Amino acid sequence: MGVSTVQEIRAAIARGEWRKPTSGLASGFTQANVVILPKKYAFDFLLFCTRNDRPCPVIDVCESGITAPPLAGPDADIRTQIPRYRIYRNGVLEQETEHIRDHFTDNMVTFLLGCSFTFEQDLLDNGIPVRHIELDRNVPMYVTNRECCPAGIFSGPMVVSMRPIPETLVGKARAITAKYRKAHGAPVHIGDPAALGIRDLQSVDFGDPPEIRQGEIPVFWACGVTPQMALKRAKPELVITHAPGYMFITDIRDKDLAES
Amino acid sequence: MGVSTVQEIRAAIARGEWRKPTSGLASGFTQANVVILPKKYAFDFLLFCTRNDRPCPVIDVCESGITAPPLAGPDADIRTQIPRYRIYRNGVLEQETEHIRDHFTDNMVTFLLGCSFTFEQDLLDNGIPVRHIELDRNVPMYVTNRECCPAGIFSGPMVVSMRPIPETLVGKARAITAKYRKAHGAPVHIGDPAALGIRDLQSVDFGDPPEIRQGEIPVFWACGVTPQMALKRAKPELVITHAPGYMFITDIRDKDLAES
Repeated sequence: MGVSTVQEIRAAIARGEWRKPTSGLASGFTQANVVILPKKYAFDFLLFCTRNDRPCPVIDVCESGITAPPLAGPDADIRTQIPRYRIYRNGVLEQETEHIRDHFTDNMVTFLLGCSFTFEQDLLDNGIPVRHIELDRNVPMYVTNRECCPAGIFSGPMVVSMRPIPETLVGKARAITAKYRKAHGAPVHIGDPAALGIRDLQSVDFGDPPEIRQGEIPVFWACGVTPQMALKRAKPELVITHAPGYMFITDIRDKDLAES
Repeated sequence: MGVSTVQEIRAAIARGEWRKPTSGLASGFTQANVVILPKKYAFDFLLFCTRNDRPCPVIDVCESGITAPPLAGPDADIRTQIPRYRIYRNGVLEQETEHIRDHFTDNMVTFLLGCSFTFEQDLLDNGIPVRHIELDRNVPMYVTNRECCPAGIFSGPMVVSMRPIPETLVGKARAITAKYRKAHGAPVHIGDPAALGIRDLQSVDFGDPPEIRQGEIPVFWACGVTPQMALKRAKPELVITHAPGYMFITDIRDKDLAES
């Protein structure tokens, strides 16, 4: 795009100049999952996130009608600065759109949730391979046998992502990701897929199947698909999200998200 | 009381057999601050806690009408198992009571917030003196010049508690308390009262004045009086809290609260 600041990148997205996934854009800045829903469900959803903060780490919340995330982008506009949105009605995907000016009302509350892009960069920077990035695939994801703690209308299983890590680097990978509590934090499980009710790592529920090499251990992190499943199950009359991979780019630096 | 389990202690409180402060009761179990308010303010208050998690760490929430904290005391009754309650109307203390059976309705949402009792025990167990406990006084507390991030009707300054720590033990005290994110966590400031807008450590806003000995550094932690000030300022028509020092005793062990 020939632009450099986060503000310029978001403005270019709003002008329609970037309609691709946001991975790799604005390196060093935190990208976030986005959930926008009617105010009457906001307490239930915030409580669901509070009770399940590994899969649903809250980075910022815009109170009803507010379009600029106060902590994550005080001069941003959540209605136009994401490259692709999804509109769900009663739990069913209705359409994908490039802005939500016509859907966002004073009644809508916006949640920004942390995303594993944040810690993947730090893993790479520390010499820990991230296989699905190497192979230019999507991360493998699995529905587990662990139920989230329900809250109001929201409930559902925890979904995890899996990255195969060389055995000698597992401790280091654990320590690096543990710093990012607002980006899913430390692994929820290391080693045995069966402990999470996963029978076959090649049978993914979302994303692409993994390639696990000799001497590598499967390491599982809580995943941002968890709240999406809870939203689909709860079936609110209207929910707006980012499209998978088309994230909101915040003003927050990944290094500042660590330990926050 | 001649009783030992948390359940027995809470039952004895409900029977009126314990009407004193709870400090020292049920050693090793987490005690919590309690805020109960009408559901229409629950989202604003939960968001205030989310945005200000150092002073307002959420341990558990009971959805409207629920009297047993699902994580912190699934067989407890929040209406009778605190030795003394306070009833506020429009921000003004109306009365102290020994139960709230007549005030608690299906419309009320209960929040349990972490308390510094949790980390004080760990400090003592690690040979770090806690002066106000030694002297059998209340901890000194100060209103700071740091504003909380507001949320809906809730706003106000951050209140801190101060403990003088021998210079050589400050790092250890920091590390111990940092583990307890749900009990205010690491200090918000070490050393200079003026950095928090505190002119004179002897002029406390709450609690008792400190005794600071040679070689000791004042260390400041976020304090649970912060949400109480925000509640008084917001003036909801009804708020119920524990009376200061008369806490709710949870089923959660302090050691399990660490790092959670």
